[in-house]
Parts: sequence; structure tokens; C-alpha cells
Amino acid sequence: MQYMPVTQSMFLFAENRDQPMHVGGLQLFVPREGQTAEELAEEVHRRFLGADEVQRLFLKRPASPASIAGYTAWQHDDEIDFDYHVRRIILPRPGEIKDLLRYVSLNHGALLDRSRPMWEVHLIEGLADGRLAMYTKIHHSLADGVTALRILQRTLSTDPDDRSGTAFWDQELLNRRPARAAAPEKSLFRKFTGAIGDTLSMIDEVAGLVPAAAKVAVAGISDSDFVAPLQAAPKTPLNVPIGSARRFAAQDWPTERLRAVARKHGATFNDILLAMCSGALRRYLLDQDALPDRSMTTMLPVSLHSDGDGDGNAVTAVIVRLATDVEDPTSRLRQIRASSSSAKHVVRGLHGVQSLALGAANVWPLAFAPVPGFVDLTPRGFNLIVSSVPGPEEPLYWNGARLDGLYPVSIAMDGQAMNITVTTVGGKANFGVIGARTQLPKLQRILDHLEAALVELERIDPIDD
Amino acid sequence: MQYMPVTQSMFLFAENRDQPMHVGGLQLFVPREGQTAEELAEEVHRRFLGADEVQRLFLKRPASPASIAGYTAWQHDDEIDFDYHVRRIILPRPGEIKDLLRYVSLNHGALLDRSRPMWEVHLIEGLADGRLAMYTKIHHSLADGVTALRILQRTLSTDPDDRSGTAFWDQELLNRRPARAAAPEKSLFRKFTGAIGDTLSMIDEVAGLVPAAAKVAVAGISDSDFVAPLQAAPKTPLNVPIGSARRFAAQDWPTERLRAVARKHGATFNDILLAMCSGALRRYLLDQDALPDRSMTTMLPVSLHSDGDGDGNAVTAVIVRLATDVEDPTSRLRQIRASSSSAKHVVRGLHGVQSLALGAANVWPLAFAPVPGFVDLTPRGFNLIVSSVPGPEEPLYWNGARLDGLYPVSIAMDGQAMNITVTTVGGKANFGVIGARTQLPKLQRILDHLEAALVELERIDPIDD
Repeated sequence: MQYMPVTQSMFLFAENRDQPMHVGGLQLFVPREGQTAEELAEEVHRRFLGADEVQRLFLKRPASPASIAGYTAWQHDDEIDFDYHVRRIILPRPGEIKDLLRYVSLNHGALLDRSRPMWEVHLIEGLADGRLAMYTKIHHSLADGVTALRILQRTLSTDPDDRSGTAFWDQELLNRRPARAAAPEKSLFRKFTGAIGDTLSMIDEVAGLVPAAAKVAVAGISDSDFVAPLQAAPKTPLNVPIGSARRFAAQDWPTERLRAVARKHGATFNDILLAMCSGALRRYLLDQDALPDRSMTTMLPVSLHSDGDGDGNAVTAVIVRLATDVEDPTSRLRQIRASSSSAKHVVRGLHGVQSLALGAANVWPLAFAPVPGFVDLTPRGFNLIVSSVPGPEEPLYWNGARLDGLYPVSIAMDGQAMNITVTTVGGKANFGVIGARTQLPKLQRILDHLEAALVELERIDPIDD
Repeated sequence: MQYMPVTQSMFLFAENRDQPMHVGGLQLFVPREGQTAEELAEEVHRRFLGADEVQRLFLKRPASPASIAGYTAWQHDDEIDFDYHVRRIILPRPGEIKDLLRYVSLNHGALLDRSRPMWEVHLIEGLADGRLAMYTKIHHSLADGVTALRILQRTLSTDPDDRSGTAFWDQELLNRRPARAAAPEKSLFRKFTGAIGDTLSMIDEVAGLVPAAAKVAVAGISDSDFVAPLQAAPKTPLNVPIGSARRFAAQDWPTERLRAVARKHGATFNDILLAMCSGALRRYLLDQDALPDRSMTTMLPVSLHSDGDGDGNAVTAVIVRLATDVEDPTSRLRQIRASSSSAKHVVRGLHGVQSLALGAANVWPLAFAPVPGFVDLTPRGFNLIVSSVPGPEEPLYWNGARLDGLYPVSIAMDGQAMNITVTTVGGKANFGVIGARTQLPKLQRILDHLEAALVELERIDPIDD
């Protein structure tokens, strides 16, 4: 048995039937020249099941008995029950992307079994466009989205002729490729909530920090642009108790298209992501006659300009005003850029534990999501999390099959019924939108709204003019 | 909103992530002459989605908020979200029965969402034998196995030329075909646990009943054959706390083959079912070196020779000794027959509330399964439930497609890691074995063991000789 730190067990405690705490990923592969999706599926399956030695992470599960040890210790199974953990399926005709997204939606709402290693891989055939899909699912107590992405990357190669493709869990991968430096090891949420749990003394700093830090750092920035922590976000259909059914929507856009818009407006890549989300949320809520009068806010993980110390501390969270209450797209983008830039200036003016504490203060409402009634009765710190996870720009291959899309499938929870995560890989910005299906009807329309918002940003005059 | 009686809410209370409280069914259909499974699937899907009016049962869900109203009241949705409740999938190659059973196993462990009507239908293509499979799942608070079977039957016809096939939930079905008489409305478990809840006064009768009733009724029957309620069953791997993963195994045998064996040995059809289960469990546990020294016992629903009053009271539960400790198959069958016959004699000697009370006394340990620690710390009343649900003997059709198998997918729970349910439909005895996957490894071997046990019964000399 292995001790389980609170930064891991908290995801087991927070989990309930309506709020599964696993993260997922949907990958699309283009078979190599002359290979069918069916042949690629067979090859992946054969290689996956052929790994000689399994990494300990993939054998790990909460210890028994579940009621006591299950929250304090890990134990390891001897082997993987492949029939359970590696699942194969063929989509029904016509095999469109929406059939694939539907499969992911239906499966992402199902809890992982705690009496076995808490992950699954689904190999999905039947896409009419000839690609092979892979949906992966791992409990947040074992890995977060960033770690999961890194685990996947380890199986991929930039060389299309590399034929050493193997399973995620192959122990050999850990020997074969040296760990990359300077990537954050832990997600924001784990880092901060961990920080809260581990550094009690920090709580004092958090309490006194905000006005002081904001004052110190905002020299030259209008106070109205900066969203301080613990401010109440408006009530929206995104901030309600949820059921277990999920809807997953995913689509990618060429990063170059977003970068061109960013250059034109003198904005950052992330500003454009946020402006797309803002425009899309505005349309989505207007359709339902549920757009709040005040601007919605988003919590956004921010990477500090790190000197590569690799311990992951160079990440914090800011809250950005999405200006969803502004009809004119030009003013909306201006406000988003101002809010985002102000937040980053504040963060950069802070040091060490201060920036961590600001992040913790911004993230703290998440820690209370499992408390019954909390969602209904307390003010929200932000309306949703939007995160952007940059990956390698060059094309990646698994045994010659090109990775053609990598959509994050994140967590929806009570009070946070929607999450938008974007990975930037191989020249594409892959949007993954997860939402509570019953509480957020027609969620898939967000995709069209994202496109419409981007077109709008392409059409308006440069905001600096 | 509609009041939810305790006989329904108890299944919501008893449910947890490791113990989903839904019942399922796996149906196999042979497409009609000239029709492929794919065409049949399209036809079923089209007809299912075309039903004009939906029966209230299929719109029903626990009321919100889940924490309070969710256990005391029902409410009804306006319509079915077909994309969620009616799922289509194609099995991976080679499309063998074991691929189908695996799909059912993986899905039966997933909880139903309480924020929407608690049922699902999965249309499953890809079987190499050309049949179409349908897996249905409904929460036990909405319907039990018997009701579910009846709902299914309502959509079927004995006429292969009947083309009025429609969805389970089509309101028209309720108008079209008159309800059949004399079939029990409620399952045993609901009946008894309901009786416990509703008739507090009965508890006194239960407490005092057993020795008295046994004394009164067992005239002429050896005491050693009768298993009184509340006797401890031996500890076995079936009687442990469980995880959420399931393994489903299913197979059918010609009823005529079982009846021939019954005739030969002067036993009942159910005696032969029990003897098959006994022989199979014996082999299964011997393989694991876990066969208990004492005989295992089973709880068996028994239909009293009803005069067709149709209110379902003519059902009770008996406990039968399976003689798993007896190596010789001849003596084993003799002991099973004696125990089963003795139990039925006792039951028939009772009247009204007495037989119900005996049933309640036999069933009572199930009511405590949700209590933490109960399973580990208290004696078991029986090792598993075996139930036999007789259906119509004649062939049944949906729009000309013949129902070729109807396998019940029942509930495993803490302390009752395995359940065997048998439906007898269209000349076949369809065995459905559900078990906790992690706690009962290689459960599917039970199928071979059932066959071996039947062959053994065919080979031995008549036990009355």
C-alpha cells in the first residue's frame, strides 16, 4: 500500500454520481498510406495488449476496504484486465463526427470503478472519413489533463517512419524517452487545492492578499479592468446543480487562423480564444433568453514566464471578464483584452507564494462544489473555466498514423456545468466543450457559435485603430 | 409531482456506485426472411422514434432537487431525449456472442442518471450470426424484472405477419392489447420489502412464525430437509462487498432437454434448474479452491398454485439447500429435490399473510445490504438468488423478426455478488448470470459448468430407482 496525499484523495471525496471526477481525451488518427482504419485498430489493439511490463500508474487503485483505506491509500493490481480496460466499438452508420461525439458524451458520464485501476481506453472504428478514434478516460486522482496529455505524447513520435508505437502503459516508454523539461507537472486545480491543504499558513496570506496585491501591482491599470478574487459572478444556466449525463462537443480550427486574428487586433492568442468563447456563450445564452445583464467571468490558468525550474510553480489562475454583456464585438474584444492583460500584469507583479495564493483564492469555490446546497446558496467566483493547453506544433505519429486531433474531455461539476478546454497540437486549436446534458440543452450549438464569433473577429476593424 | 411509495424509493436509497439498482434484459432477434440485421435495426430505430405518445412510465424520474424530493416524489419529463435513451452501436469483429456479452457487462455496471427518465435501450448490430441484439435497462424503482418482461411482451406478437411492431413506450400499446391476467405484478423482492414497509404489524408475525409454521407444516417431512429462514449460509466468494464492474454470462438450453431430465428423475423443472446451478457453482468454486464445507443455499421465488386473482400475492420465497457439498450427482439431486419439495410443502401449508411473512423473513437480509459493514459482519440468510420467470411457450415476433433469446440481466449487490435468473420463452430456458467482475473472476465459466452439470444429470440413473 502507498500513502495517498490529500491532493489526490480530494478527487475521490469530491466525486459523486452526478459529478464524476475523471478527465478524458479524444484522439483522431489518420491511418498511414495504404492502411484502413480497421487495420490500424487491429494494430493498435495488438500492440497495446502486447506490452510486457505495465507502468505502476496503470495498476493503481484505491485500497480496500473502500470505506476507510479507499481514501487514504493506494494499492496495485497484479495485471490489467484488458477485456475491461481496453474497449472496442464500431460506430453506427453513417459514422459522422456527431456519432463519435455522441459515443463520448454517453460514456463520459459513467463513473470509473474504484475496485480496479481507474482508467479506460476505447478504440472506436466506423468513422466514414476513414479515421480511427481513441477515447481515453483516467481518474483525476491519478492524473490531470496535462499529465494525461504528456502520457499520450510519450507514445507518439515526430518521425512518420518510427514503428516503435506501443501502449500508454508500457513500462518501456519510461526508459525509452527522457522526460521533457519545464512542463508543469500538476494542473492548476491540484496545485492550488494542494497548496491550500499543504500550506495552512498560506491561508492567512490569501485572506489579506487581494486588495493589497491588486493595489501594488495595478499601477497604470484601470481598477475596473481587474477582476479580483471572490467577486460574485452573475447567475447563469452554467452555474447550477447538475445530473450525470454529459454532452461533449468538439471541433478544431487552424491555429494560424486564430493567430492572424490576434496579430490584426494586437491581442494574444489566448485573448482570441476567450473572445471566441465569449461570443459563443453570448449567442448560446441569448438563444435561451438567459444572458445575464452583467458580464460573465472565466477562470483561466496562466503560465508565468518561467525560467524553467520545472517544479510547476510557474502556473497560476486569473479571472477574466468575458464582456458577454457587450453587444458590439469590437468593444467586447477590447474589454476582454484589457481584463486579461490587467490580470496578467497583476500576476507578474507578484512573487512566489503570492501568485500561488492569488490562484488559490481564485480557484477556491471549486473545493466546495461537493458540499450539498453550496452551489445554490453561495456566490460564484466565476462562471466557467476555460483552459488552454499548448502541445507540440509539429505533426505527431503513432506507428506512422498521424494524430489529426486531440480534444480534451474535461470535468463538469455542480455549479460549473460547462468547461471549455483547448489543446494546441500540430497546427490545430482543438476545442473540447463538456457540459451537463440535462442542464445545458443543445450544447453542441456552441461549436457553430464559436465559428460565428471567430468570423466576426475576422470581419471587424482592428481594435487598435 | 407524484408521491413515491417506500417500495420504490428504497431502490434509490439502496443504490450506490458499486450497487446500481437497475434490471436489464438482452433480447436477440432473427430478422425476417430476406432482411439483414442492419435493415432490422433501421426499422426498429425508425419505429421506436416514431411513437406518437409516450407512456408516462418512460417519462418518469425522481423529482428535483435530488437531495429531498428525489426520494419522495416523481415528476415527468415532457419528452424523451432519444439521442440519450436510445443508443446504437456495432460490435467489433468477430461479432461473437462473447463480444455481445462483454458489451452488456461493461454497460450494466453504469448507473442510470436520476435527472432524466431512468431507462436505456441499446440496439446492437454486428453479430456474425446475423441476429440483432437489444439490451434494455430500467431502474428497479420504476419496474422489476417481471414487469420489464411484460412490457417487452406487449410489443411482440405470436403472428409472424403482424406488422404493428412499435416501441416499448408507445402509449398505443396500452390501448391496443388488453393486459394479460394472473401474472404477478410485482417481483418478490418488492412485494416483501414492500410488505415489510407497509405492514408493520406483520413483523411480529414474522418473528414468531418460523418455528411454529415449520412445525405445523412439516408433518411428514424430515426437519433436516427444510431450511428455516434466518439460518446462516456458509461464507463464499459470492458473499462479499463488491465493486461496480459487472460480468454478464448468458446461454440458453432447450426446455425440452431439461424437461426430459426432470421426467426421468421424477423431479420438477425447477429442481433441474437448481441442480444445474448447484453443479455449476460447485465446479466454479472448486476451481478457486473456495467450495464451502457446508451446503450453499439459494433463495428461490415460488409461485403458489394461484386461482388467478392477479394481485400477485400468490408468490412467495423459499430457501433451498443446493447440496453443493455433495460430490455424487445422484445424491445431490436427491437432496435438492427433497429440500425444494419440503420448502414448497411448508409454504402450501401456510395461508395469506403467513406465506408472505415467511417470504419476507427469507428475503429480509437484502434490505440491509446497503448498510456499511453489514455484509462483512452478519450471517447470510442465503448465498444467492436463483429465479425462474416463465414466459409464453409459443414463438414471438416483432414485425416478423423472431425473438430468439431473452436473457435477464439482474442485480448484483453487496453480499450477493451473483444472481442467476432464467426466463423460459419460446421453447428455450435462457440463463442470465450477472456477477461482480472483480470479485468473481472468470464468471463466464459458469456457462460451461451449467452444461456439464446438465450432461451429468442426463447420464446418471434415475434417482428414484
